[in-house]
Amino acid sequence: MSGVPVKVTLADKLERIARRWDPKIVAELNGQQVKLVKLEGAFLWHHHEREDELFLVISGRLRIEFRDGDVELGPGELVVVPRGVEHRPVAEGEVHVLLFEPASTLNTGDVRNERTVEAPERI
Amino acid sequence: MSGVPVKVTLADKLERIARRWDPKIVAELNGQQVKLVKLEGAFLWHHHEREDELFLVISGRLRIEFRDGDVELGPGELVVVPRGVEHRPVAEGEVHVLLFEPASTLNTGDVRNERTVEAPERI
Repeated sequence: MSGVPVKVTLADKLERIARRWDPKIVAELNGQQVKLVKLEGAFLWHHHEREDELFLVISGRLRIEFRDGDVELGPGELVVVPRGVEHRPVAEGEVHVLLFEPASTLNTGDVRNERTVEAPERI
Repeated sequence: MSGVPVKVTLADKLERIARRWDPKIVAELNGQQVKLVKLEGAFLWHHHEREDELFLVISGRLRIEFRDGDVELGPGELVVVPRGVEHRPVAEGEVHVLLFEPASTLNTGDVRNERTVEAPERI
């Protein structure tokens, strides 16, 4: 077996994601995960008690609503949502996003409902 | 003061980086840092004792050499170099890279020489 790490081509991984709001793990390091997710429409208000969460937009435009105002992200733009801060992602059209966050992060944060993905698949 | 997180536009941050092999911090979360760096030419063989390191190519083409073979990365491609694994980045032409790694990570790993950046600046 070769000891050479395997590269991840984001576009190839995105092709394998069919559903919206269904994050998939594409890499893991230092207890953190890199996830890819396709978003469309509005998510729910939530926060993460113990995890800061990074959103990096790959394609499309993403608005992240906060209680005090919004952040608008286009391709090549990122934001860190600190732990404890309520937020709601809203995608006008389809948006592809890369997430960096601790492996413990639940997509719906403090909320558990039909949109919760308990154990994201690694692709 | 507004409680709205500030977004980071990678292209704007890259414009502020003049030198090659001089990583700059653009975001921090969960004890990890997101850095941007411009590479050109060959770096030195090194490893990180305790840190896994993620390279995501933004523009250009990057070869990461390992003792058992190479990985070639283009835009939108990433690789995780596990802790302890010797590697040498080689950029043919200018390459822009996003790094995701623990705040403790030294660019030259187990080596300290004139290429070591002891305390990368946050931009």
